[in-house]
Amino acid sequence: MKFVYFFGCGFADGNASMKSELGGKGANLAEMTSLKLPVPAGFTISTKVCLDYIKGAGTFSPELKAEVESAMKKTEEAMGARFADSLNPLLVSVRSGARVSMPGMMDTVLNLGLNPTTAEALAKKTSNPRFAYDSYRRFIQMYSNVVKELETHYMEDAFDSLKKQKGYLEDTDLNADDLKELIETFKLIYKKHIGEAFPDDPYEQLWTAIGAVFKSWNCSRAKKYREIHSIPNEWGTAVNVCSMVYGNMGENSGTGVCFTRDPSTGENVFYGEYLINAQGEDVVAGIRTPKTLLLLEKDMPEVFVQLEEVRSKLERHYRDVQDIEFTIQEGKLYLLQTRNAKRTTQAALKIAIDFAKEGTITKQEALLRVNPQDLDKLLHPTLDPRAHKQVIAKGLPASPGAVSGRAVFTAVEAESWAARGEMVVLVRDETSPEDIGGMYASQGFLTARGGMTSHAAVVARQMGKCCVAGCSSLNISLSNKSVKVAGIEILEGDWITLDGSTGEVMLGKVETKNAELSSDFATYMGWAKEYRKLKVRANADTPRDAQYARSFGAEGIGLCRTEHMFFDENRLPVVRQMILSKNRAERKEALDKLLPFQRDDFVGILSAMEGFEVTIRLLDPPLHEFLPHTDKDMMTLSNQLGFSADEIKQRVKALYEANPMLGHRGCRLGISHPEIYEMQVKAIVEAVEKCRSQGKKVFPEIMIPLVGEAEELRWLKDRLIKIAPQIPFGTMIEVPRAALTANKIAKHADFFSFGTNDLTQTTYGFSRDDSAPFLRVYKQENILTEDPFAVLDQEGVGQLVKLACELGRSINSNLKLGICGEHGGEPSSVKFCHKIGLNYVSCSPFRIPIAMLAAAQEAVVDFKETA
Amino acid sequence: MKFVYFFGCGFADGNASMKSELGGKGANLAEMTSLKLPVPAGFTISTKVCLDYIKGAGTFSPELKAEVESAMKKTEEAMGARFADSLNPLLVSVRSGARVSMPGMMDTVLNLGLNPTTAEALAKKTSNPRFAYDSYRRFIQMYSNVVKELETHYMEDAFDSLKKQKGYLEDTDLNADDLKELIETFKLIYKKHIGEAFPDDPYEQLWTAIGAVFKSWNCSRAKKYREIHSIPNEWGTAVNVCSMVYGNMGENSGTGVCFTRDPSTGENVFYGEYLINAQGEDVVAGIRTPKTLLLLEKDMPEVFVQLEEVRSKLERHYRDVQDIEFTIQEGKLYLLQTRNAKRTTQAALKIAIDFAKEGTITKQEALLRVNPQDLDKLLHPTLDPRAHKQVIAKGLPASPGAVSGRAVFTAVEAESWAARGEMVVLVRDETSPEDIGGMYASQGFLTARGGMTSHAAVVARQMGKCCVAGCSSLNISLSNKSVKVAGIEILEGDWITLDGSTGEVMLGKVETKNAELSSDFATYMGWAKEYRKLKVRANADTPRDAQYARSFGAEGIGLCRTEHMFFDENRLPVVRQMILSKNRAERKEALDKLLPFQRDDFVGILSAMEGFEVTIRLLDPPLHEFLPHTDKDMMTLSNQLGFSADEIKQRVKALYEANPMLGHRGCRLGISHPEIYEMQVKAIVEAVEKCRSQGKKVFPEIMIPLVGEAEELRWLKDRLIKIAPQIPFGTMIEVPRAALTANKIAKHADFFSFGTNDLTQTTYGFSRDDSAPFLRVYKQENILTEDPFAVLDQEGVGQLVKLACELGRSINSNLKLGICGEHGGEPSSVKFCHKIGLNYVSCSPFRIPIAMLAAAQEAVVDFKETA
Repeated sequence: MKFVYFFGCGFADGNASMKSELGGKGANLAEMTSLKLPVPAGFTISTKVCLDYIKGAGTFSPELKAEVESAMKKTEEAMGARFADSLNPLLVSVRSGARVSMPGMMDTVLNLGLNPTTAEALAKKTSNPRFAYDSYRRFIQMYSNVVKELETHYMEDAFDSLKKQKGYLEDTDLNADDLKELIETFKLIYKKHIGEAFPDDPYEQLWTAIGAVFKSWNCSRAKKYREIHSIPNEWGTAVNVCSMVYGNMGENSGTGVCFTRDPSTGENVFYGEYLINAQGEDVVAGIRTPKTLLLLEKDMPEVFVQLEEVRSKLERHYRDVQDIEFTIQEGKLYLLQTRNAKRTTQAALKIAIDFAKEGTITKQEALLRVNPQDLDKLLHPTLDPRAHKQVIAKGLPASPGAVSGRAVFTAVEAESWAARGEMVVLVRDETSPEDIGGMYASQGFLTARGGMTSHAAVVARQMGKCCVAGCSSLNISLSNKSVKVAGIEILEGDWITLDGSTGEVMLGKVETKNAELSSDFATYMGWAKEYRKLKVRANADTPRDAQYARSFGAEGIGLCRTEHMFFDENRLPVVRQMILSKNRAERKEALDKLLPFQRDDFVGILSAMEGFEVTIRLLDPPLHEFLPHTDKDMMTLSNQLGFSADEIKQRVKALYEANPMLGHRGCRLGISHPEIYEMQVKAIVEAVEKCRSQGKKVFPEIMIPLVGEAEELRWLKDRLIKIAPQIPFGTMIEVPRAALTANKIAKHADFFSFGTNDLTQTTYGFSRDDSAPFLRVYKQENILTEDPFAVLDQEGVGQLVKLACELGRSINSNLKLGICGEHGGEPSSVKFCHKIGLNYVSCSPFRIPIAMLAAAQEAVVDFKETA
Repeated sequence: MKFVYFFGCGFADGNASMKSELGGKGANLAEMTSLKLPVPAGFTISTKVCLDYIKGAGTFSPELKAEVESAMKKTEEAMGARFADSLNPLLVSVRSGARVSMPGMMDTVLNLGLNPTTAEALAKKTSNPRFAYDSYRRFIQMYSNVVKELETHYMEDAFDSLKKQKGYLEDTDLNADDLKELIETFKLIYKKHIGEAFPDDPYEQLWTAIGAVFKSWNCSRAKKYREIHSIPNEWGTAVNVCSMVYGNMGENSGTGVCFTRDPSTGENVFYGEYLINAQGEDVVAGIRTPKTLLLLEKDMPEVFVQLEEVRSKLERHYRDVQDIEFTIQEGKLYLLQTRNAKRTTQAALKIAIDFAKEGTITKQEALLRVNPQDLDKLLHPTLDPRAHKQVIAKGLPASPGAVSGRAVFTAVEAESWAARGEMVVLVRDETSPEDIGGMYASQGFLTARGGMTSHAAVVARQMGKCCVAGCSSLNISLSNKSVKVAGIEILEGDWITLDGSTGEVMLGKVETKNAELSSDFATYMGWAKEYRKLKVRANADTPRDAQYARSFGAEGIGLCRTEHMFFDENRLPVVRQMILSKNRAERKEALDKLLPFQRDDFVGILSAMEGFEVTIRLLDPPLHEFLPHTDKDMMTLSNQLGFSADEIKQRVKALYEANPMLGHRGCRLGISHPEIYEMQVKAIVEAVEKCRSQGKKVFPEIMIPLVGEAEELRWLKDRLIKIAPQIPFGTMIEVPRAALTANKIAKHADFFSFGTNDLTQTTYGFSRDDSAPFLRVYKQENILTEDPFAVLDQEGVGQLVKLACELGRSINSNLKLGICGEHGGEPSSVKFCHKIGLNYVSCSPFRIPIAMLAAAQEAVVDFKETA
């Protein structure tokens, strides 16, 4: 087994494909070397060594030592200098480099190999003692801090007191002798705190530094970073030992960073910054203001031409925009790193499209170049990154976007403030369907309870509004009209700001930027549509939402929830009359009044989606959701409808449920109160007739919710098909038993739609409204890595979905299969849906582009794999 | 295909094994004929004809007509008379006969074949005109009512007015001429209401009667009966056409019913009743008081000897106690029917044991002779069948037994009335764990809400108390201390009676009989234990319940719920203090106070179950269940513990859950509050040490509830095994995801226990507390034939159980598998558990005999099938 990979003089042991062994930096240094680009020679120690070192006793094997010595010999030959030599010493940097970039997370030591002898030799060789001793003192500082974890302030204080003592103003005022004095002081500080002398032996320095870099893989900030970015602990880091080159050796030296295209806009311009007579840290640290790259053409015309060649060579070679670090040492260009450039979503789109148009990559490859989730950023307002923000709480990032508004605590207040032209944010313990009017009137919602698929979250995503949910540190008092959080009290009317992409809640009004959609976006979506196999529908309940969805490219509606139509203020009293009816005849009378409303809703939605299928789900929630809960509201209702308050109370009590999620709802309600579904189906039939009389082609599908037993569907379909003989019937698969008995259910269904929200609730036994507190702990403890309400649990819930598809299609090969849970707009879940062969996914309108791109990516990958 | 089966003169086309074609009665008539027993000749029309007749146009095929005519010819020959003959007429009865007995559900016509000519011939032949015309008028009445659905009162009124007109007191005062007059009146009534003349043609009478019997299979009372007794509609009924014989032809004639053993006690005595000079209906109708069979020895010594021979011949032949109908016509014995006798459970036990001891059947067969569910009746008090009862409501029969008590409406009142020596029945909307003290003090519970596995039902079965649950017609007012139902108001202290085996609620005190266990019971249970493969454990939470369970034969505890220990009035304040703690240190302090209580509980339970395994489930319910809910109770708690009422309210609000069933409970609580489980495990370890120091052999097992993801179990086990390194750890499989990922979970588990209550809830998405209203409709509409909380749903929930067993054992072949849901005591579910290879079932103590017998039966059947 090979541990060490040399690179230098146009020859390298490794290459760009070996990121898992060499890390990203090491692999690319090897690749650039083989491309005959000017890379200072050096070698990479494999990530395998890191894991052994961490697991083992922290020692290095003789085999490794031999390989390092041999690689060091080659490096010395390439650079014409010798490590630890007293006349012509080679100095090196020791840097970490993991498979993926983890910027600033792990350790680096520069100028390694200096001691009194080599420093003196360096001074002589460069005829620049100040440079030599400045490098030496920097090395001691860095080594002490990085390798020995000495806090930086001890040496910084010594530096400052020397400056003071000498009466200097600038660091650069120190001369070589001052620096020699400082080095002695640093060594005393080192000995005092570390308990041993600062090592003079360059090899001792080297091995200790290598060990420190490996250990830094497990430092707490690196661990945290991996947790956030889902990077496996088992990857480890490589160590790169590179010959030092210096950008700070005078006016013909310099250092810089460049991008082969503009990473903010994606424009095809050479973009970057550099500093003359400086080291890399100076660019990063921002102490001096760097110059824009284009000025280099004047400063160092030859180097600039060389760099332009590097630019086009690397971009062609890597077929992607590169982020390049370079140093110029006394007029000679050295490349220290190249990697695929991080970019904004806007730039990513433009670059992918331009590359494809230029013929560098195929359209399919272009589709793989943008993270679907990132498209969200293009569709919603975002916080101005320069604005000051005071974060007072953090909840779940339930629906993206950033908004500011005045806090209100009831839906009614939201509506009345909004009517006065105010921007409001609705703050609630949790929202309920009754709040829908106030939710429309608000800019965003903030809730103390509930998870990623709580009512507030689902409605927000569907409306394209911002939502922060499950923010448990809020202490809301409805009577005081206030919320206390983090020791601050926010009153009704106070400004707050939400960032629905991070879950942050901020005090006051923070500036936001609006979303603007480019023509690139349309082009890119067009390509996605061309390659994806899955159709993408929207979840939409109103003509407005349906139009919105269509403008984002929806190809039908996968879930139209009819209950949302029941909460309208004109209809709610009639709905309540229906519920309070003492017998079927009275109930029918109330339902007759509701029919025209429902019919008109359906006409609107079907018309907005003309030419596409619209899946209409019959009434789902339990009846008690429509009744008032407070004594006051019951009194009002009593006056309104002429039922006694006692009767109303009695009915509310009789309908009370301990676990409404598992209660008398969905098809259970449809079976115990068949007249409700009969009215709804009649309204659909009448709506179709009206649309067709206007020459519109409309395609409704009727969906029966919550079926768990084939007989439920058969019983209802037998009744309803008499009213609507021409319309397809199907069911939601949203309880485990439906999936387990899907072969029986499929006998009576034209389609299945997977309601993965409820299926996740029942498969895990997690209430979406109550799970936030323990899901938080589960993520902390790594018991679950993802929130199963946001990302489909392929192992458990997905297993049931797959089983149901197989069982269903085994009976009815024409069975249409779709998903209408929140997962329909989440990339990894959409990809799973492609894999198991669904016909479509359905998601909230704003997620359609995400779903479309994810579907296209999986189709492209699929095509590649089978090809 | 054969439609008609003749029997007569020692020869029969059919036999006893052909019940599905011939019905029970027809098959046994054939069998008795072949046994050379004196059966009047006749024939049976197959059940297949019934189904064709009902489905078809209600006509008969020429093939059938030909077969009937041929069978009639053979019957005529056997009886030496001819159907429709004007000199020597044969008369027949036309009777239904399904595969299983459905007493009184379908139709019968006697004396068929009479018309003016044959009646006169019969009068001459018997020299008994009164008999002939009485038979004729009876035939007209029966035919009109049964075949033509004419209401009986028209002819009864005519009969009465004739008696009045003639000045007669008794029916028998009418002479032949009176009867002739009556017959003419009957025919006029018939013509007036039916619109046609009464048919004189015997063949017309025959075919119309046959059709009527077939149609009666679908009359509403027969349908209802089948629904209740789970008899498939597709079985259909046969029709038996038998030669009439008459027990009413004088003092040397008679009719009776006899049992080969006493069906009440099972004693081996010849038991029965008869009437001289009477027809079968007279015995059934109860107008005359029949004589005990033993007197027949004096009345008709020869017949009695003959009957004794029949008794032993039939019992030997059928290897079971027979219920025999006989008629003696002028000194000659005829057998009209034999069937296995219905018997009491007590008798069933005795008969099975006696038969086995006599060598008539094997022990294994004896074990199949008692319905396991019936054993319940032996263990609980029952209503005195002779007592008058006024049923005012009906709920679910949630826990068997019958009790009377004074109504109380809170647990506190229950305790205080009981302390005064009163018998009380606790009447609640639903019970909660807080009520446990009051529940112990009550005779039984009546609830308005909740199903077969509601809290009240589960606790009742475990305590062996009577419970009627989900009685939705109750309207309970806590403020008035009263309940209104069926227009009656019951106040606190009023007597009511519950029958937990039927779900009936009665006004006042109805006499009950106590249960007494015979030595037969012990013998039979011993045999069951000998043959069963499944072990039977009990669900028990207290030393008292554990002892109880042991006395019923429990072989360990499968579910010991530790939360029940938290509700004790000494402990609840400490539990509440723990929940209200502001930090982990305070919480630990409270937990330290709870530890000795828990340890002592465990010492008691482990000691009571010495030598057997005891599976202890760590805390399961969400914390809010332990907190008070009313303002008043919160104030009391505030004074008790020194927390402000506001703090308590705040905490109650923070812990509120929309769906507690799917909330922050089970292992989720264990993970977010690890100190709770740590305390419990410490208590178990200390209890084991104490028991062992007393020389007791105890075997606890620690069960982690509600695991759905292997990491949950791993995380907790890693922590807890440090405290209890010697004790086996396992989990409940009670959410679908646990079953679906059982292979991963099994890596960390020594055992699985299927919590089929919760698994049923989550697989169906049914809340056990809220499903009663729609489950009622589902049963009515035949959407579900059984309550899945009472009878394991093998298709859905069972599929998951089976899958989890297979996945679990594929990883760990030593994995111990059991079930601890309510289904563990239900016979069909126990049989399923045997089939899929579980190691044990665990059920409430009173169900142990049921489970043991069901397990033995399935083992016997299994053995037979493989042999």
